[in-house]
Amino acid sequence: MKRRHSEFLCPKFQAAMEILSRPWNGLIMATLEGGGTLRFSELRERLDAMGDRMLSERLKELEASGLIQRRVSAGPPVRVEYELTEIGHGFRDVLNAIGRWGERITTAAKPRKRA
Amino acid sequence: MKRRHSEFLCPKFQAAMEILSRPWNGLIMATLEGGGTLRFSELRERLDAMGDRMLSERLKELEASGLIQRRVSAGPPVRVEYELTEIGHGFRDVLNAIGRWGERITTAAKPRKRA
Repeated sequence: MKRRHSEFLCPKFQAAMEILSRPWNGLIMATLEGGGTLRFSELRERLDAMGDRMLSERLKELEASGLIQRRVSAGPPVRVEYELTEIGHGFRDVLNAIGRWGERITTAAKPRKRA
Repeated sequence: MKRRHSEFLCPKFQAAMEILSRPWNGLIMATLEGGGTLRFSELRERLDAMGDRMLSERLKELEASGLIQRRVSAGPPVRVEYELTEIGHGFRDVLNAIGRWGERITTAAKPRKRA
């Protein structure tokens, strides 16, 4: 949400793309949308090939953007859980649109090689 | 479209996110959606802070994914132009959903600092 990259594009679209164009952010949000409240280890388990450190950084960013919420419940044992905020849940419509588009992409004929 | 990152998420969503989660791809496609057929220099001009080399790489990738089409018209002067394919135009719905979500993100109250 820091920069505008083009004066020809809607600033709100650019703000949203700033979040989505970072690796894993879309997948993390989709995982929380589908899974509800999840612990770090549960998120980690559902996102193959994603390292702990990367997940931790992304969660901090998404929290700072107001899209997810981190909750710590008094222990023992202390539980740290993550869930989407109300704004974060608004991602559902984007998720569905991306899913439908993904369907068209993956069922399309193989692309031609560049001449 | 190479990998699946999670067995908990729709593979089609993941294929689409694989494209969208690379820097600039969403902005390039949105620019072509709004601008029609554009030359390299025109695209470059509309995407501030994007280097020639990065733009060139992204265009090749998007072409290989079947989302944009590169057309060379006989010269002189030779014109190289880019436009969305039919599948690429299907991005419009995603673009609109992202724009609406962006509206909610940017009008939301400032996020709290992490405790």
